Amino acid sequence: MSSWYTQCDNNDVIITSRIRLARNLSGVPFGTRLTDEQKKQINERVREAICDSNTPYAKTLKYIDMNDVPENECYAMMERHIISPEFAQNKENKAILISDDESICVMIGEEDHIRIQVLHSGLDLHKAYDIAERIDTFLGEKLNFAFSEKLGYLTECPTNLGTGLRASVMLHLPLLESTREISAIADSVSKIGFTVRGIYGESSESQASLYQLSNQITLGISEKDALKNLEAITTQIIDKELSLRETARGVALEDKVCRAYGILKNARIISSKEMMNLVSMIKLGVGMGIINIDNTLPMRILIECQPNMLMRKYGSLDAHERDVKRAQTIRTLLE
Amino acid sequence: MSSWYTQCDNNDVIITSRIRLARNLSGVPFGTRLTDEQKKQINERVREAICDSNTPYAKTLKYIDMNDVPENECYAMMERHIISPEFAQNKENKAILISDDESICVMIGEEDHIRIQVLHSGLDLHKAYDIAERIDTFLGEKLNFAFSEKLGYLTECPTNLGTGLRASVMLHLPLLESTREISAIADSVSKIGFTVRGIYGESSESQASLYQLSNQITLGISEKDALKNLEAITTQIIDKELSLRETARGVALEDKVCRAYGILKNARIISSKEMMNLVSMIKLGVGMGIINIDNTLPMRILIECQPNMLMRKYGSLDAHERDVKRAQTIRTLLE
Repeated sequence: MSSWYTQCDNNDVIITSRIRLARNLSGVPFGTRLTDEQKKQINERVREAICDSNTPYAKTLKYIDMNDVPENECYAMMERHIISPEFAQNKENKAILISDDESICVMIGEEDHIRIQVLHSGLDLHKAYDIAERIDTFLGEKLNFAFSEKLGYLTECPTNLGTGLRASVMLHLPLLESTREISAIADSVSKIGFTVRGIYGESSESQASLYQLSNQITLGISEKDALKNLEAITTQIIDKELSLRETARGVALEDKVCRAYGILKNARIISSKEMMNLVSMIKLGVGMGIINIDNTLPMRILIECQPNMLMRKYGSLDAHERDVKRAQTIRTLLE
Repeated sequence: MSSWYTQCDNNDVIITSRIRLARNLSGVPFGTRLTDEQKKQINERVREAICDSNTPYAKTLKYIDMNDVPENECYAMMERHIISPEFAQNKENKAILISDDESICVMIGEEDHIRIQVLHSGLDLHKAYDIAERIDTFLGEKLNFAFSEKLGYLTECPTNLGTGLRASVMLHLPLLESTREISAIADSVSKIGFTVRGIYGESSESQASLYQLSNQITLGISEKDALKNLEAITTQIIDKELSLRETARGVALEDKVCRAYGILKNARIISSKEMMNLVSMIKLGVGMGIINIDNTLPMRILIECQPNMLMRKYGSLDAHERDVKRAQTIRTLLE
């Protein structure tokens, strides 16, 4: 098992490509109006469809009842971007079907009955979509999704109506952030149906200069066109960030990057917030060739040193103990 | 030639021991009332006494006319603690006699006609005094010093009257400083005839938690007793600092030390002020065994990265260029 964040590719701006398809079962109330019994029934129907099938999914996707997952591990899954914060916060009677490498995760009982998520490192939207679509087709044949000829897939929230597709890319934009151009970009893309969000999606803050760019429009546009448009805008934003990086090149930037590296390599106590800022700087430094370390390390540190990821490894820790373990983990990773 | 700051001994609190004897020639006006011609005559008389003698001093002490020393090198000598700031600031018609390792420096034309200075690393007051006394005796035989049977040696400023001796130790007191106990100590020692000053003597500020402790009383006390008392107080202050260090031992202090080390090892731009603070932390870390580097390095960095010391090596530099060269020099020294 090797998660996305251990396979960060050479591209220094784009971190991940994510596809999410929202689906609901026909003849069953939407999420907010479900009884506990109905929730369990949905879990069981989806589990059966996958695990009792004669397809490779029966082997590659493992069913996990979220009631059996300790709260801590649940938040650690959120920190790895496998499940959404909303899903983690209220895991009762929810379930997932997840692949070994965690790149595929079917959430059962999120806002919609089913959310198929495929997460790949780097710019890989079409490949991720192909995988999601195959699972969608397979599940659709078995389960009878709520679908209207006129509107497309029916969803709990009207913003997902139609394709039920949310395609998003996570981007590292330290220069667009420090020059404050990111807000102007967020404004303009919102006018053409895209959103810029923080790293944990809706209403989350940006940390480590990481931003998620995703499509907003799910009605009246094909999935392929939505992906093509997202890719085109992503490429433009990447170009803008890279061009700002070249302008900023010089000893002042090198100083910032190298100081961040020096602190990460030596500190004995690091808060989560400081870690995010420092990792953002070294990620920039790796991308610009200012420091020469394994280019998967910044994202590994960023994910593996989140509070619940640390406690998953070292057991229960108070805030101070976490800051100490975080510093220790970072030193080990950077050695 | 190997200066004091390259030979810092294992003791982690005491940096240097310094002896200074103030002497004036009989029958010649004191410093402030001297004409240029008289100043030159004094230089020549002292030079002759040493350089034309049949003693080892003729070989070991080199005469330097300060008019021949570029202003920059003059300030670099001050930064190495070889001459006083006052001497450096107005070097016209002044001269020195200096040993190869710069541990002996006879200043001619300071506040007093002659100031014999011996500077050793570590706690070495008696040995330093013996050397200064031998030069004093030799010069006294040749030059006829202004001396009163009742008062002792006559000096420009009454605070030096009597023995003309200023004995001082430079101490690294980061814990006494951070706990603010240093001001209480300065107050109490002043009541028993001692002074705590910044690193460049009178009215200079403390930098890098370095303080000079010296005797104030030169009348009615023998040289040996003055040294003995200074040594006793020094030992008490050292014990207090070391005991505070043990109390402070822990991950929070380690974090500060290691961060300072990480920044020094990696930064690309460092101001003189930041360097002083960081070096103070790593010096503390070396002393407490938190970081394991050559224990002479903190003082070498501190002295060799002073502004004029850098320009002595790399030629004229503006403030920004100095900050870059300083960072580079530190990285090289720490490698």
